[in-house]
Amino acid sequence: AVVREEMDAAGAHEVLMPAVQPAELWQESGRWDQYGPLLLKMQDRHNREFCFGPTHEEVITDVARKELQSYKQLPVTWYQIQTKFRDEIRPRFGLMRAREFVMKDAYSFHSDAASLEHTYDEMAATYQRIFTRLGLTFKAVEADTGEIGGARSREFHVLADSGEDALAYTEADDFAMNIELAPVTPPTTDRPPPTAELTEVATPGAGTIEQVCQHLAVTPAQTVKTLLVEGAATATGATPPLVALVLRGDHSLNPLKVARLPGIQAPLKLATPEAIRQAMGAGPGSIGPCKTALRVIADYSAAQLADFVCGANRDGQHLTGVNWGRDLPEPETADLRNIVAGDCSPNGNPIAIARGIEVGHIFQLGDKYSASMGATVLDQNGREQPMLMGCYGIGVSRIVAAAIEQNHDERGIIWPAALAPFSVLILALNSRKSAEVRSFAAELYANLSQQGVDVMLDDRDVRPGVMFADADLLGIPHQVVVGDRGLGQGIVEYKQRGSGESRELELGELEGFIAAQVAAA
Amino acid sequence: AVVREEMDAAGAHEVLMPAVQPAELWQESGRWDQYGPLLLKMQDRHNREFCFGPTHEEVITDVARKELQSYKQLPVTWYQIQTKFRDEIRPRFGLMRAREFVMKDAYSFHSDAASLEHTYDEMAATYQRIFTRLGLTFKAVEADTGEIGGARSREFHVLADSGEDALAYTEADDFAMNIELAPVTPPTTDRPPPTAELTEVATPGAGTIEQVCQHLAVTPAQTVKTLLVEGAATATGATPPLVALVLRGDHSLNPLKVARLPGIQAPLKLATPEAIRQAMGAGPGSIGPCKTALRVIADYSAAQLADFVCGANRDGQHLTGVNWGRDLPEPETADLRNIVAGDCSPNGNPIAIARGIEVGHIFQLGDKYSASMGATVLDQNGREQPMLMGCYGIGVSRIVAAAIEQNHDERGIIWPAALAPFSVLILALNSRKSAEVRSFAAELYANLSQQGVDVMLDDRDVRPGVMFADADLLGIPHQVVVGDRGLGQGIVEYKQRGSGESRELELGELEGFIAAQVAAA
Repeated sequence: AVVREEMDAAGAHEVLMPAVQPAELWQESGRWDQYGPLLLKMQDRHNREFCFGPTHEEVITDVARKELQSYKQLPVTWYQIQTKFRDEIRPRFGLMRAREFVMKDAYSFHSDAASLEHTYDEMAATYQRIFTRLGLTFKAVEADTGEIGGARSREFHVLADSGEDALAYTEADDFAMNIELAPVTPPTTDRPPPTAELTEVATPGAGTIEQVCQHLAVTPAQTVKTLLVEGAATATGATPPLVALVLRGDHSLNPLKVARLPGIQAPLKLATPEAIRQAMGAGPGSIGPCKTALRVIADYSAAQLADFVCGANRDGQHLTGVNWGRDLPEPETADLRNIVAGDCSPNGNPIAIARGIEVGHIFQLGDKYSASMGATVLDQNGREQPMLMGCYGIGVSRIVAAAIEQNHDERGIIWPAALAPFSVLILALNSRKSAEVRSFAAELYANLSQQGVDVMLDDRDVRPGVMFADADLLGIPHQVVVGDRGLGQGIVEYKQRGSGESRELELGELEGFIAAQVAAA
Repeated sequence: AVVREEMDAAGAHEVLMPAVQPAELWQESGRWDQYGPLLLKMQDRHNREFCFGPTHEEVITDVARKELQSYKQLPVTWYQIQTKFRDEIRPRFGLMRAREFVMKDAYSFHSDAASLEHTYDEMAATYQRIFTRLGLTFKAVEADTGEIGGARSREFHVLADSGEDALAYTEADDFAMNIELAPVTPPTTDRPPPTAELTEVATPGAGTIEQVCQHLAVTPAQTVKTLLVEGAATATGATPPLVALVLRGDHSLNPLKVARLPGIQAPLKLATPEAIRQAMGAGPGSIGPCKTALRVIADYSAAQLADFVCGANRDGQHLTGVNWGRDLPEPETADLRNIVAGDCSPNGNPIAIARGIEVGHIFQLGDKYSASMGATVLDQNGREQPMLMGCYGIGVSRIVAAAIEQNHDERGIIWPAALAPFSVLILALNSRKSAEVRSFAAELYANLSQQGVDVMLDDRDVRPGVMFADADLLGIPHQVVVGDRGLGQGIVEYKQRGSGESRELELGELEGFIAAQVAAA
């Protein structure tokens, strides 16, 4: 309801497209084969091919090319809330990555880039309102645009320790990016001068950074690791030369960043152990950037080190006191790694890292679908032009799971008010034995319902302890405990699930108090 | 929303079951093969078999057997509003019989028949409330229980001339049945005495009732038609004898009723022309009940005739002035035909016939699914008993189509208030040219929206005639026409789509008037 209200308020029109989609549309866009086994395919009784829609770009583009003829009809945004199916290899975490899920998907059509940009920004603002109303702590992060270079894309993540994605953000401003994308800025200070002699030391059996550090009593930040990857394929088909990437021992490679560097094979291909030995004369655990003919690219942080440790290109040997420009040439430098806490954002603010669950994604599609499927309109000069498109998704069922990941304690769920299936839970203790409890609880239920409050009544024949535990497990925000003894004293107990605070209420003030609590949420 | 509110009010719990269902459940119930090509089957990436759920008895029974252990947990009713798929041979009438459609399906579980009966009656009352709130003219009719003998079943039909089903009902009471099922009561008056001589007449080329009537200048109601059907198969496997069914010429055979008679093959099998000639010595157009050794069963109305016309069992010959008991033996009598307007209901009230669109169906399933799938609970004596089940469906998308069939005129849709996608349509005439129209319409839109009224604003750059025609076509109940000239005089025009009545409103009274109209609906 919240998603629908905000989409309507943004001027989007609700539609419902078919879940079962004809193969022909996907063949037109080229995705029938591209989409791979994620696409659940089927045949009807006439042996015509269909799929269970994992997304609806093709269908909406087909609608648009039939319904829209002129730029005067643009812009338009259509949305639906519908069941999708993606045949995931490993469905997991319950509703978090189920194969079948409920999604809000919206698609906008435009006659020019400025109009697309306008709607895209409006949808970004709409998503902010939706997730804010849902009571979620979230970040809007710039996202990988994948195969569509240049187009804008933004993900909305609910922050939770169990999230699949790692996000880099700053407290000081609204900078937030997936760590896959967040750029690490080059250091602004000078590299310290060398102070140690270059020394070769035996490190028998030490193949990992941890083992080397332990052996030499240094920290990972004083070491570098060297990774060999394939260079870009040449036009002649000759085996491309390997490239040596050098990172600080405590940093991790970012394959997306590296693959974007000139001269590097994309997507990234690590060299085999055999190729490494052939190029460096040692195994992967003992290689380093000294005395090699390969192209060497050092991450900014690795290039900033003095007196560092690296492999000696001899099995079981390392070098200590290594210095760029003295013991080996100054390296080519680049941003090769994932950002970490303590790095600086482009604005110079300290980066924090959090885990997030992606619950929304907005995207500028451009003419990817409209061009391939011939969705054109006449422009102001009477010429056919493919429309520009945006698409805007919200994982409705995943929001539910994400809200629980973010809002729970050891006793169970703590529903945000807007997501709670009920606002109030009445616990009628021992109601089978007490006519007073029964009638009071039933009357309270009826009165609150009458006032439009979503209320649930637990009148099961179970022990109070079971009822209390189930109430906390279910996580309904407001609990009202109706018991025989309390009623005798003219009171019931009220408990707020979130804060755990409880208080006794006189019967006369009860309904007004509850209604005020619910309204305040 | 109306369906959901009333189901909630009836104590049903909303759930959402998967659209994609595993084959194993359907194999357990035996319906994987029984359901035939209506069932859309598919395989996932691991080659496991699934279907797109056309209904959810199997899934809910699987849920119930896992969640319910004791009679103390019963009764319980679960419902969902969800997309179904039935691979119809001939999808037709737009939303009326689409392969993919939205359905509300509910399932109840019980420990005894009285509890099932209670919930069944409660659901019947809930359906009455739903269709009443939706502003539909409908009939609740007793339905064929199909393969499940004895269980109760009731259909809810929206009355519309385009309906697929024919319904027999009375104005005087709440009798209503599908004509397939409505019993015709035996006549309470005596048969008139014979007055004519038995005469054989030549009727060359007259093979149908119409041709015979034209030839002999009689009405169909003075003739009988004789149909031969196969008798019940014998245990020895010998060819079963044929049975002659005699109906008045203006009546139509009801195969369901006939197939229920003892000694008749069920489902009904008509004799072939060859078998008819062999048994009667004439072709189908010239046979009659006289001088035959076959068992003869006359419909009550046919048995009531005197001086009637029938085939002579000689090609091209008929008999006139035929009388039961004089020219041929008194026949066995039964109810063989479809009821017609003017027949009497069991309460003695005159029957009317209307066409209906089935939008709801409630059903007592008994233990059909719970027994085959082992969905048992412990009863009060600690013994495992299969639960009894009811199921309750509403064709949500079909309601929309049925409402339009029932509520339209030559200009377009006339939405019932509860079903209208918007309550109010503002027609802003020539708004691109008039700043006054633009700003007044926008303000009216904002103010009505603010008051919670669903309002749509037509501010397209089209001629007023197009706007008026589209407004009537869309059928929004309340139209507000904002034009330059009217605004100059301080008025706007209000029109009610249903009655066609229109009036001019002063600007000051406008919002209050509209709000009152919407609230009154």
